[in-house]
Amino acid sequence: MRQSKLFTKTRREAPSDEQAKNAQLLIRAGYVHKEMAGVYSYLPLGLRTLNKIIDIIREEMNAIGGEELLLATLQDPEVWKKTNRWDDEVVDVWFKTKLKNGSELGLGNTHEEALTALMTEHISSYKDLPRYAYQFQNKFRNETRAKSGIMRTREFIMKDLYSFSKDSTQHVEFYEQAAAAYERIFARAGIGEKTYRTFASGGSFSKYSHEYQTVCDAGEDTIYIDEGTRTAINKEVYDDPDVYATTGIDKTKLVEAKAIEVGNIFTLGTRFSEPLGLSYKDTAGETKPVFMGSYGIGPGRLMGTIVEVLADEKGIVWPKEVAPFAVHLVSLGKPAGGSLTSRNSGSQTSSAGDEITSVADKLYEDLQKAGIEVLYDDRDLRAGEKFADSDLIGIPTRIVVGKDAVATGEFEVVDRATGTVEKKSHEELLKI
Amino acid sequence: MRQSKLFTKTRREAPSDEQAKNAQLLIRAGYVHKEMAGVYSYLPLGLRTLNKIIDIIREEMNAIGGEELLLATLQDPEVWKKTNRWDDEVVDVWFKTKLKNGSELGLGNTHEEALTALMTEHISSYKDLPRYAYQFQNKFRNETRAKSGIMRTREFIMKDLYSFSKDSTQHVEFYEQAAAAYERIFARAGIGEKTYRTFASGGSFSKYSHEYQTVCDAGEDTIYIDEGTRTAINKEVYDDPDVYATTGIDKTKLVEAKAIEVGNIFTLGTRFSEPLGLSYKDTAGETKPVFMGSYGIGPGRLMGTIVEVLADEKGIVWPKEVAPFAVHLVSLGKPAGGSLTSRNSGSQTSSAGDEITSVADKLYEDLQKAGIEVLYDDRDLRAGEKFADSDLIGIPTRIVVGKDAVATGEFEVVDRATGTVEKKSHEELLKI
Repeated sequence: MRQSKLFTKTRREAPSDEQAKNAQLLIRAGYVHKEMAGVYSYLPLGLRTLNKIIDIIREEMNAIGGEELLLATLQDPEVWKKTNRWDDEVVDVWFKTKLKNGSELGLGNTHEEALTALMTEHISSYKDLPRYAYQFQNKFRNETRAKSGIMRTREFIMKDLYSFSKDSTQHVEFYEQAAAAYERIFARAGIGEKTYRTFASGGSFSKYSHEYQTVCDAGEDTIYIDEGTRTAINKEVYDDPDVYATTGIDKTKLVEAKAIEVGNIFTLGTRFSEPLGLSYKDTAGETKPVFMGSYGIGPGRLMGTIVEVLADEKGIVWPKEVAPFAVHLVSLGKPAGGSLTSRNSGSQTSSAGDEITSVADKLYEDLQKAGIEVLYDDRDLRAGEKFADSDLIGIPTRIVVGKDAVATGEFEVVDRATGTVEKKSHEELLKI
Repeated sequence: MRQSKLFTKTRREAPSDEQAKNAQLLIRAGYVHKEMAGVYSYLPLGLRTLNKIIDIIREEMNAIGGEELLLATLQDPEVWKKTNRWDDEVVDVWFKTKLKNGSELGLGNTHEEALTALMTEHISSYKDLPRYAYQFQNKFRNETRAKSGIMRTREFIMKDLYSFSKDSTQHVEFYEQAAAAYERIFARAGIGEKTYRTFASGGSFSKYSHEYQTVCDAGEDTIYIDEGTRTAINKEVYDDPDVYATTGIDKTKLVEAKAIEVGNIFTLGTRFSEPLGLSYKDTAGETKPVFMGSYGIGPGRLMGTIVEVLADEKGIVWPKEVAPFAVHLVSLGKPAGGSLTSRNSGSQTSSAGDEITSVADKLYEDLQKAGIEVLYDDRDLRAGEKFADSDLIGIPTRIVVGKDAVATGEFEVVDRATGTVEKKSHEELLKI
């Protein structure tokens, strides 16, 4: 798209109350807007990036048999009372509200209850198992502190998948498929090398769960890494001798690091199916509770993590698969028309634009025809401002169209991550 | 997808408390799940259909220059107090909630306030105008009554676009483009002929607004149609002589009808920009308030309306562009493997399946390779049950694979809307 049409502008300073690097950069570059502490809106560039991340996750969830649905935010207390999770003393992140008649409703902070209750209408026999259902849906959590930018917010989109299996054997088979899918997701999102499958507390459902933890100084968690096996131990179970017996990991080899939890996979067992009556008849006609698991990734948190881990002093650095555009085409020409008359150089623009603009326009069209997603900086600004904006926005490949390109037919191509500069012809660029 | 893998099942009866035809059919066919009065979840078939509708709307909004973003649900009271819309006496559909520290938040029922406040950071000059921003976002409205199925709910996705213009001249130009886009949307959604641009009350913002009303006995509104001009007058302004002076419509020619409001477009003027300080400097350097408009369509309500208007006694009838799948491939063979052993015929299945199944499997693969979206009924059920399910689910084209097809190489192709039956060869089917 033409940057002159993009309604967002970059800014030099983030809001003074914003402490997190991810939000500071994302706000300055025009990806997100801070509505209040812990609540962010996604602007056009931010929504494009978020959707790229969502698309990766969706592909990988579909590949392991996930069926996508969309549950409601408003939650019926009666369902949550059955699992003893309605009480604010038990679940301390509830946002609650009321119908006109005064009866209470909750805003979903997770969806085990709603989906388990729903599944009683569709699962009744061993023939109906296994099933895997997932969604990208807004969660609401009444966090006391919200200081990590878009990584810990009071409202956020979550990919939550739930598995429904006959027994723990059928469950484990899928659990490992989900684990492999998670590894593919984090690799595609550009943080695979920094992300470790991590043993963590299982809560009330099972002894251990697995988290995916990405090493980063801004992380809220502490993990202990065993580089050899690419696994880690969360601090919360670090002192539990059982975890070493279970994993075979040598405690003395572990290296401590700060990390961000970018995903988790949980064995739920029959914690929800029993109180909510989700059961099936097995081949012998016996009634058994369904065996469940849950699998979460927050695409917004993942986006924030990518910024934290990969950004440099100039701004954001997006990996290819999650970048809002593949190419940032920066024209150093004078744009056509009078409406963009320079406020910086004070020069007069002709209504036709100059030769640089014609060459850039043509390249923009041809790149789009070649199926390449391009942000085209056609604004009437000084080169220095355009390059600073481009570095801040962080699109992987920058193509510069200036006098030299017009004279030689060779365009400067800059790799945002490495700073490497190459020269390429119009034809070569279409194969980027 | 294979229907044997789809987790939803059809059911003979809708919940007894469900009065609306749209929800009765959508629940029976497995498109939606009723969580409570006025709150529905979208199951896989329903989400596919909803997303087809969303894709149509998105295409048309992008075509008129809309930039997509995603605002937050949680609303800061301070912003709404500036426009005097925080008070429950003024806006009677608020759901409100509280942070841990006791301060109140609202759940967004619309987003004029949030977006206008946000735009103050990006619009400052006439050069920044016009701008058009839209989203697909969940709204929450504390409706007293919720009896119209998915057409009037307490939580629903809304497409809301907001336009930001220099003045009313620039505004009107876009307003008419948006009106034309709305007509394309309703035509593509299969209800164009039954939908009328309708004069309605403008509320506090302007004298009139426009609604798009679809004629339907289940509608909550009454309109008066002028067939010649394809426009209508909403009952609320029917007795206002001004509306006839404005439109040139002859009141005596109008025909009364019940209708469903499927969209609306509003001139907001400076109702929000003034209190929220959204202004720009014009060419003379003078500060002026931005002139706004808003443009809404509820994709869920549109989906419900399509069901209400087009369904027949057998079930749902989807128009091509919104159907969850293009083709319902119904095999009358015995599926392979033992896990789907018939519960109806009592027959034994071989592990390889029969010849009908092989032919159907091959057709399924080839249709998918040809880029056609297929729901493949590979379940081990009697033909009558499969056809009844297929009619209920309402996919536009049904292809039947039975003994005859295997013998002759000609497949029965049934048009869901008309019931027309044709015979087509494997090769012809791939060009459907």
